[in-house]
Amino acid sequence: MIQLDRDDPLADYRDRFVLEEGLIYLNGNSLGALPREARNRAAEVVEQEWGQGLIRSWNRHDWVSLPTRVGDKVAGLIGAAPGEVVVADSTSVNLFKLAAAAIRMRPGRCKIVSEPGNFPTDLYMLQGLEGFLQGEVRLETAPREVLSSHIDEDTALVVLTHVHYKSGELFDMAAITARAHEVGALMLWDLSHSAGAVPVDLNGVGADFAVGCGYKYLNGGPGAPGYLFVARRHLNDIHQPLSGWFGHAEPFAMRDDYQPADSIKRGLCGTPGVLGTAVMEVGVELQASADMSKVRAKSRRLGELFIQLVEAHCEGMGFALASPRDAERRGSQVSFTHQHAYPIMQALIARNIIGDFRAPDILRFGFAPLYVRHVDIWDTVQALADIMATGEWDAPQYKQRSAVT
Amino acid sequence: MIQLDRDDPLADYRDRFVLEEGLIYLNGNSLGALPREARNRAAEVVEQEWGQGLIRSWNRHDWVSLPTRVGDKVAGLIGAAPGEVVVADSTSVNLFKLAAAAIRMRPGRCKIVSEPGNFPTDLYMLQGLEGFLQGEVRLETAPREVLSSHIDEDTALVVLTHVHYKSGELFDMAAITARAHEVGALMLWDLSHSAGAVPVDLNGVGADFAVGCGYKYLNGGPGAPGYLFVARRHLNDIHQPLSGWFGHAEPFAMRDDYQPADSIKRGLCGTPGVLGTAVMEVGVELQASADMSKVRAKSRRLGELFIQLVEAHCEGMGFALASPRDAERRGSQVSFTHQHAYPIMQALIARNIIGDFRAPDILRFGFAPLYVRHVDIWDTVQALADIMATGEWDAPQYKQRSAVT
Repeated sequence: MIQLDRDDPLADYRDRFVLEEGLIYLNGNSLGALPREARNRAAEVVEQEWGQGLIRSWNRHDWVSLPTRVGDKVAGLIGAAPGEVVVADSTSVNLFKLAAAAIRMRPGRCKIVSEPGNFPTDLYMLQGLEGFLQGEVRLETAPREVLSSHIDEDTALVVLTHVHYKSGELFDMAAITARAHEVGALMLWDLSHSAGAVPVDLNGVGADFAVGCGYKYLNGGPGAPGYLFVARRHLNDIHQPLSGWFGHAEPFAMRDDYQPADSIKRGLCGTPGVLGTAVMEVGVELQASADMSKVRAKSRRLGELFIQLVEAHCEGMGFALASPRDAERRGSQVSFTHQHAYPIMQALIARNIIGDFRAPDILRFGFAPLYVRHVDIWDTVQALADIMATGEWDAPQYKQRSAVT
Repeated sequence: MIQLDRDDPLADYRDRFVLEEGLIYLNGNSLGALPREARNRAAEVVEQEWGQGLIRSWNRHDWVSLPTRVGDKVAGLIGAAPGEVVVADSTSVNLFKLAAAAIRMRPGRCKIVSEPGNFPTDLYMLQGLEGFLQGEVRLETAPREVLSSHIDEDTALVVLTHVHYKSGELFDMAAITARAHEVGALMLWDLSHSAGAVPVDLNGVGADFAVGCGYKYLNGGPGAPGYLFVARRHLNDIHQPLSGWFGHAEPFAMRDDYQPADSIKRGLCGTPGVLGTAVMEVGVELQASADMSKVRAKSRRLGELFIQLVEAHCEGMGFALASPRDAERRGSQVSFTHQHAYPIMQALIARNIIGDFRAPDILRFGFAPLYVRHVDIWDTVQALADIMATGEWDAPQYKQRSAVT
């Protein structure tokens, strides 16, 4: 393991994050670690830009351009071009903007297609849209195996998450996008669990829209803004209903009538969250500075190693792989089911090994390639085997559920 | 002036903000100043909560409750009860949520009434809703003088801003709310330019809904989250369409079907912006610690003094009062028109006196009672008179427009 870490071309990145001595953090797919530089940036934005610059910082520190500037940096990570991505609001809000706009681009079509078990907030937002439009559109979910057959001439939009949040399974973006286009539907990808850890080529696959999260592999900080992508060919046709002043062609003219910007800025709504966006920029830059082919290679290696070791050292202990075995079909996370998944994860956390539990029975381990080491994988599996062998997981304190599980 | 500052019961608050020596900041109605404590809080959230606590901070530092905890503190400033306010998203997004929900609570009614010249993003959001619903509802704007007659049995919702962003004029919340209810319409107030500087009594006037901004008089930081209020009597009936996972009854159960929380949490959408919300909490607490009757008294006094001094010292220089003269009918800001408003404001800014310009011809001065002194008013008017008398405003460098004006 030590040799693998020594040979790791990304090994130097670890030092650019704050990671407590002794902590093994396998939850970067849920909340990425703190880049050292983000501490300085936060202090700078608060003290200099807000405290000293005050209102003048809209110009002086170019707060006005934050959503597009950081958006362009995200674009580089997801196969988008500059001018196709803005950073703003939350992933959920961005999904609503694009889904609402998309159904108006396909009048007469009444279906939005997704899969059951998709990232919950995505389904919830689509249900919100469905309810609000009172039957004008309906959300239809179908399992992966039969999904294609549900995408038909009645379909306005297909909404899927590239990497499944529980299983880590990857969709074939090119094939599904092509299927959607074949019947004249639009395609919206949620990249929350892939961007930054898995190569994404939105323009390569011809995607229409995408959204994603700033605080997972992009290390943007807790509740960092999300982002949205609109393919350049749609920029003039998209009319998203959350048409706030920052999406206006001339926001500071403060006229009564909304006139959308003739650029990706029309994807914006209210005043950008300056603090959150500025801090997120650090994480995005750090991620963008890494060679994606090396990131992906390490991510696959970590996942393979983990599966191998769990199956070797925890054999017969009740774990079953819940992620694709084939690294080609897997994002940067590996899940195992176990009937006692919850207390087992609590026992790991008590040993300072942080993965997470997903109801009802999933232990999920995320491998952020910039800061997870091979030795962390080894240590985690040794701890897991020990927790099982000694019955440590069965202690009463590990069974008490907390608000966030 | 010095005596007035000495007698000011709020004088001690000024030291709790970071304000550069020599700066006169009359733009707290646009972006409030930095509370000293907010610097510490930002560092704490970044370093301890994110950096050390990582994903565990959802429980350990109770990130889960941030939107309601800060919401309850805002509630105290606007005459709402605990459990009626959440802090989240932007003012614009919150307006959309509530306006969309409101029109579904008044089926068959097709009008949303507002006024021309309302805070632009409010009109834009309502236009976005109107466009999205393709004629099902329409936005009707009518000037204040005749507004009441436009509120009729066809009206689902009335949306107005309590204090006008340009003129500082106050609406009579009780009278307009009563008028809306008289015809069975719902009432939504935007408190962005009043909360924290003007007494607001949402429940006293029987308001149905409200939204507001975190970064003006609440001193929450640039692009801080907004908030929304739903009167308790509507909590079970409101179905806002931006139904993201944080509005779910059990967000962490991660089920496929949306089930709204049976509380104000159903006003939430995506993951809260932890950094922005935590920092905003400091500003809200600071504001909430001040006695509102003293805040209002000082605000009136500063405004009256300013009007008096401008009219005495700048007589015949082309300024005309663009705010109500009667302090009863005015928020915590005073505007004057001048045909050369833009370069005059630039000349003031060059002297480190920060107000702002609003197209086409308005000089706007905001008086945040917690940190603006009487002596600042005196100095501002002396500078203004001097800039006019010497022709300083006419220098070419003050005529160049910047992105944010």
